[in-house]
Amino acid sequence: MVMVKMVEYDSASPEVKAVFDDIMTTRKTEWINNFWKVLASQPSTLKRIWTNIKEVMAPGKLDPLTKEMLYVAVSVTNNCEYCIHSHTAAAKAKGMSDEMFAELLAVVGLANETNRLANGYQIPVDPQFKPY
Amino acid sequence: MVMVKMVEYDSASPEVKAVFDDIMTTRKTEWINNFWKVLASQPSTLKRIWTNIKEVMAPGKLDPLTKEMLYVAVSVTNNCEYCIHSHTAAAKAKGMSDEMFAELLAVVGLANETNRLANGYQIPVDPQFKPY
Amino acid sequence: MVMVKMVEYDSASPEVKAVFDDIMTTRKTEWINNFWKVLASQPSTLKRIWTNIKEVMAPGKLDPLTKEMLYVAVSVTNNCEYCIHSHTAAAKAKGMSDEMFAELLAVVGLANETNRLANGYQIPVDPQFKPY
Amino acid sequence: MVMVKMVEYDSASPEVKAVFDDIMTTRKTEWINNFWKVLASQPSTLKRIWTNIKEVMAPGKLDPLTKEMLYVAVSVTNNCEYCIHSHTAAAKAKGMSDEMFAELLAVVGLANETNRLANGYQIPVDPQFKPY
Amino acid sequence: MVMVKMVEYDSASPEVKAVFDDIMTTRKTEWINNFWKVLASQPSTLKRIWTNIKEVMAPGKLDPLTKEMLYVAVSVTNNCEYCIHSHTAAAKAKGMSDEMFAELLAVVGLANETNRLANGYQIPVDPQFKPY
Amino acid sequence: MVMVKMVEYDSASPEVKAVFDDIMTTRKTEWINNFWKVLASQPSTLKRIWTNIKEVMAPGKLDPLTKEMLYVAVSVTNNCEYCIHSHTAAAKAKGMSDEMFAELLAVVGLANETNRLANGYQIPVDPQFKPY
Repeated sequence: MVMVKMVEYDSASPEVKAVFDDIMTTRKTEWINNFWKVLASQPSTLKRIWTNIKEVMAPGKLDPLTKEMLYVAVSVTNNCEYCIHSHTAAAKAKGMSDEMFAELLAVVGLANETNRLANGYQIPVDPQFKPY
Repeated sequence: MVMVKMVEYDSASPEVKAVFDDIMTTRKTEWINNFWKVLASQPSTLKRIWTNIKEVMAPGKLDPLTKEMLYVAVSVTNNCEYCIHSHTAAAKAKGMSDEMFAELLAVVGLANETNRLANGYQIPVDPQFKPY
Repeated sequence: MVMVKMVEYDSASPEVKAVFDDIMTTRKTEWINNFWKVLASQPSTLKRIWTNIKEVMAPGKLDPLTKEMLYVAVSVTNNCEYCIHSHTAAAKAKGMSDEMFAELLAVVGLANETNRLANGYQIPVDPQFKPY
Repeated sequence: MVMVKMVEYDSASPEVKAVFDDIMTTRKTEWINNFWKVLASQPSTLKRIWTNIKEVMAPGKLDPLTKEMLYVAVSVTNNCEYCIHSHTAAAKAKGMSDEMFAELLAVVGLANETNRLANGYQIPVDPQFKPY
Repeated sequence: MVMVKMVEYDSASPEVKAVFDDIMTTRKTEWINNFWKVLASQPSTLKRIWTNIKEVMAPGKLDPLTKEMLYVAVSVTNNCEYCIHSHTAAAKAKGMSDEMFAELLAVVGLANETNRLANGYQIPVDPQFKPY
Repeated sequence: MVMVKMVEYDSASPEVKAVFDDIMTTRKTEWINNFWKVLASQPSTLKRIWTNIKEVMAPGKLDPLTKEMLYVAVSVTNNCEYCIHSHTAAAKAKGMSDEMFAELLAVVGLANETNRLANGYQIPVDPQFKPY
């Protein structure tokens, strides 16, 4: 049960429509997914989060597919159902195959296991790992 | 304060030494980090986890650097101090620059934010994201 | 799929009925929400948790609305669907508007982001923050 | 850096002293660990939490050692350094050997791994698991 | 919405069938639950995880029921719906009564509470808890 | 062990100095805490996060003290040591007394407990909580 009313394009304010238009143009798509329709209930949040996403997920030293896979890894670890679906779809659109997804989940699962072994045993950090 | 006595190479049993040797050979290194010295207190766990790591982190459809960065993303989300240090060091050894690390953390941070927005608003999954 | 049978008022034991009556009197309401019907399957837990809630959520140096909003912030961070719904409803009954809810989620989202940046970079605590 | 001043027995109020005395009597010990000295900064919380601990950790259908090990499993999953140390010590005092601790951590690690595989793949619950 | 197609026994490859057969033989059951049908989409993961489960969950210094209850404690803390259902069912099959389950959840709940009090107050570990 | 070199004011680039100046002016303070010195290693992140913080933490329908306390609640739930210290200090500077802090932690602890009871019992959301 969604906590607020979703804002559809046709009944959106000009401010919200401008963000929706930018999302569709940037992503070369013709629909708006629920995440943005919900955020649109608070236009300042809609604009702020979209601005952050555009900046952070843009190609940089990491390519967009790697960034999407990192997003999926976090979403799986936090158990965010919506985010698992939306970012897995985005990663597939950018080239992630089923086998790559399976390997991604294998790493995420194993990392969650060894994270608890390291914390449970309270393992001291080796001085050799000193970053600089 | 580590919870068990760490096992050093010289005083290790042959079973443990065999795993330590395999770690050093596989990784082309001459030292054993604390994670393995601690797990060696329970040789069956040492062997099982090392076997899993070797299989999961081997090159596949994802390259080893991408896998290490996914490992860092999970470790940061879970706040595992040891794992952040050890896997960041491993990722750097495989080619992650400081700028790539900064971009990785930017994605991890943003994913943790939008995960909470999606959960807090209880956003329904769009049918368009149906995986197959 | 709920893990135990919920206990309805009419078929409850006198011990459970007494807690249900106190909940309805304290909250000036005429129904019992599922959380209590489920806890009633173990009457000692029902009584213990209700006693804790009454004590912790009572007006103190923090007003009841602030306390409910803190409850929502934790529930969103942990992704507890039931708790997000029940405590958001409680906060609204105590005066939280849709705009206040949107600001609450914006803070919760951002805090989850900067928590990961702080942990990911392993930032040392400034001595100026020493509490006393 | 602890966030409040710890309350030592000699300078404690009679209300706090009464709880400290009860802790030492119940646990057949002659010292108070830091957890209680910190909670004593807010006597109502000290009393409330101690009352909860006494009730929940008392022998019931589960024996006290099993309860302590469950406490350790949660503390490791949440990465609470203080709780890992204090409840592992308590479990050892109740009979947990080093080998039992190693098995406990192996289960906790593996559970954290398969939790992410189940969430990552969004596996539907089998109807056969319906609880009743 | 499950992320991959589940593999049914009749259409499984010989490699997958061998694991399915071993699961049914080991567990003295005649059906395969969804977890394994999903993992079967990546046979190497299916085999690896089943091997881990068999080794870690086998009787050792901890009995199988205690191990299942530890599994439930972790799954509840992480809010893994599938794992809560499957491991609670497994624990019940091994003798966990409704009252034992209620006590388990009471411990898990309280541990999650005191974990946050310990972290929130940043309580220093007592030197008496030094493990060895 | 911090993962990157912190950037001090005197050796900062003009771009970083401008953000540092804005932080000190906005907060009416004369020092820069480590969080910003670390983020300054990636100026685009420094600027982006500061812009977000300024927008989200500004007075709105919620007052700045309430926002800081929500930040503390999230940081305690996630166990972010740096964030617990920095945001508790900020909340105190805005008027949070020791007693308010104690009540905040009591709510955070209890919420973490009942979150697990709700998830562990898989309690269905009451239709009465439907948000609109």
